[in-house]
Amino acid sequence: MPFDNLFQAQLDKLKEEGNYRIFAELERKCGSFPTVQNHGEGADDVTVWCSNDYLGMGQHPNVVDAMVEAVKAHGTGAGGTRNIGGTARHHVALEAELADLHGKEAALLFTSGYVSNWAALSTLGSRLPNAVILSDALNHASMIEGIRHAKCDRVIWKHNDPEDLDRKLAALPANATKIVAFESVYSMDGDIAPIEEILDVCEKHGAMSYIDEVHAVGMYGPRGGGVAEERGLMDRITLIEGTLGKAFGCVGGYVTGSAAMVDFLRSFASGFIFTTALPPAVAAAAAASIAHLKQSAAERDAQKRQVAKLRAKLDAAGIPHIDNPSHIIPVMIKDPVKCRQLSDILMDQYGIYVQPINYPTVPKGTERLRFTPGPLHTDADIDKLVSALKQLWQQCAIAHAVA
Amino acid sequence: MPFDNLFQAQLDKLKEEGNYRIFAELERKCGSFPTVQNHGEGADDVTVWCSNDYLGMGQHPNVVDAMVEAVKAHGTGAGGTRNIGGTARHHVALEAELADLHGKEAALLFTSGYVSNWAALSTLGSRLPNAVILSDALNHASMIEGIRHAKCDRVIWKHNDPEDLDRKLAALPANATKIVAFESVYSMDGDIAPIEEILDVCEKHGAMSYIDEVHAVGMYGPRGGGVAEERGLMDRITLIEGTLGKAFGCVGGYVTGSAAMVDFLRSFASGFIFTTALPPAVAAAAAASIAHLKQSAAERDAQKRQVAKLRAKLDAAGIPHIDNPSHIIPVMIKDPVKCRQLSDILMDQYGIYVQPINYPTVPKGTERLRFTPGPLHTDADIDKLVSALKQLWQQCAIAHAVA
Ligand SMILES: Cc1ncc(COP(=O)(O)O)c(C=O)c1O
Ligand SMILES: Cc1ncc(COP(=O)(O)O)c(C=O)c1O
Repeated sequence: MPFDNLFQAQLDKLKEEGNYRIFAELERKCGSFPTVQNHGEGADDVTVWCSNDYLGMGQHPNVVDAMVEAVKAHGTGAGGTRNIGGTARHHVALEAELADLHGKEAALLFTSGYVSNWAALSTLGSRLPNAVILSDALNHASMIEGIRHAKCDRVIWKHNDPEDLDRKLAALPANATKIVAFESVYSMDGDIAPIEEILDVCEKHGAMSYIDEVHAVGMYGPRGGGVAEERGLMDRITLIEGTLGKAFGCVGGYVTGSAAMVDFLRSFASGFIFTTALPPAVAAAAAASIAHLKQSAAERDAQKRQVAKLRAKLDAAGIPHIDNPSHIIPVMIKDPVKCRQLSDILMDQYGIYVQPINYPTVPKGTERLRFTPGPLHTDADIDKLVSALKQLWQQCAIAHAVA
Repeated sequence: MPFDNLFQAQLDKLKEEGNYRIFAELERKCGSFPTVQNHGEGADDVTVWCSNDYLGMGQHPNVVDAMVEAVKAHGTGAGGTRNIGGTARHHVALEAELADLHGKEAALLFTSGYVSNWAALSTLGSRLPNAVILSDALNHASMIEGIRHAKCDRVIWKHNDPEDLDRKLAALPANATKIVAFESVYSMDGDIAPIEEILDVCEKHGAMSYIDEVHAVGMYGPRGGGVAEERGLMDRITLIEGTLGKAFGCVGGYVTGSAAMVDFLRSFASGFIFTTALPPAVAAAAAASIAHLKQSAAERDAQKRQVAKLRAKLDAAGIPHIDNPSHIIPVMIKDPVKCRQLSDILMDQYGIYVQPINYPTVPKGTERLRFTPGPLHTDADIDKLVSALKQLWQQCAIAHAVA
């Protein structure tokens, strides 16, 4: 085809580097998650160890039933943008549920967490007078793209370093509208931000605070409001952003904050205005998931138990992993080709699925396997995983020794 | 709340101009669309006249059943990004269905049509050597934002004017990678691009062609492939973009084209990579909708009939509307306050819902009511609408006369 040479040249480069991605084609079966059917090479049934459906809510009967009932009652789509015929009772109810979850006046739904970050940051940065966005050095792609798109001034501060943030805020002109953007749980290393110290610095300088709790909502805090809820800090944050696609088991994103701020984003954010609303049935399912996790700690407790178990067994087996206070267990491989090989062997020979994490998701040279134990992983699943890794690590050691 | 004054100032300005938006809160009921329950002010049951579920596929039994079955079987969410555990059999099958619909080698799903435009254009514009994007002056916000984000050179050509495009292409340096971006059906005026003439110009200058068929897929062409299918032009277009959220009745967006181009976007587009995949059940529903509309012309034929009827009756009633060859019937009001008043009266007194279309969806001064008749609007619905409009127009004429 014409132009294919242009595309192929860049694909060839990816392949040479070992960064070309092959997607595993999987089929989830309600009731048997985290075991799924594998339609690609390797074992037929595999245990997923890298899911972002962290608590298995995607197959929770309340959530499944809410979606099924809403599809039957209201159909498959919203039929319009939020402004032009696309606002359903379920969207309004979900926004109220989300505002309540975070103790905020209001919430606004987006089609994804990516779009909520991109649209909110680009709108704040481009429309507020003399806006400057101060972005943690390891912020997610969706925040980076939103900040780039804002075309306002931007400052990168050292990852999780409130002192560096303090210095950088102090250097800004008095009339700047300062917006400090960061995450709670960083999904690739599993470390958690010093939220209180960051908020102290924000308040000292009169800056807005913008937190992405995408990898925390549902899992942290007594009602699943995230790390800021767990630490009693929600009311000090200007904007809390989250997703419905990870621990809540559905799809979609949102922001919460003051009524005026939410109304401002509703009224001006291009990525909110000019797009078909989420299906009412998705909103119904997400609301059911949030409502369940507000009053049930069972899933969170079981997740914590299984995370601790896997860590302990990895330690006992001598398999190094990044230590962190979250539910994410990264095992560093630091080479894209080896990372894919290990992943392939786990899939083919052990029925274990863990996707190699490579560039551009992580910087080159920091390739890893990233394990996310959940409440539905059994002790036997954990034993099986650790024994497989142990065998592979021993083979690697042998391979190293004879090389 | 702190900072609220910043947000409130901009909201106040919108309100002063009459451009502040109030969303209608509606509840669709499967089987009774386009009649829906109104949860806001006004009549309880209203007939929707501005839906983008153009063919009512959001309540088609095949589509509803496909979604219900898939939710029951596979759960409510994908559980990951496409690369990290989120690719299901249903995504792969839908991409094959979409490639087939447009006669292309491959297709790629995005979370929305907005994201597909934004991500595809920003990736092409930023990664191809010496890229220049030539954009029709009336392109949709999602394309404009994608082009802005690309930070490549861009050129605006006169709306639907191949001669202006020709001149602008001729003025570019020989080594530029030229990408011509336009739509088929423009949703606010309902006019349709001279696609063949545009492609002639593209080919003359060795430019890629990028068409947005968001308001055409499902509705034009013998299999619902869009205006390019109807005119036998699909194979001459480099990239065809569409949505699953309008005539297909679900949510999501896509691009189709050569295997290398699709693989390139799959590998490099941030808006594709860093976001949770659509729920497999949404993919299943969309595939069922596309499959149905590939072999059934009944919905398209009935839509054309009802569009022609509404136009004829508006003419007979002396209500001016923009003439165009599409299914979209805009009635110009040219004032945001009047536009909202008319919409409110229709809702309150006649049980008719048509959202006022105001800034930023259309330029200030071109406010309108925009009617989209579909196969499920009965002749009685049309008569009721026209008689309501006639009464309002007569009252307006009287109001003008005594003013
Ligand atoms: C930190 C962070 N923010 C936002 C997102 C985007 O959320 P979503 O998957 O709902 O688009 C992701 C991952 O996908 C993420 O890791
Ligand atoms: C021309 C055009 N392109 C793209 C989109 C975005 O598609 P989606 O609603 O699937 O995000 C829209 C409207 O929403 C549109 O009118």
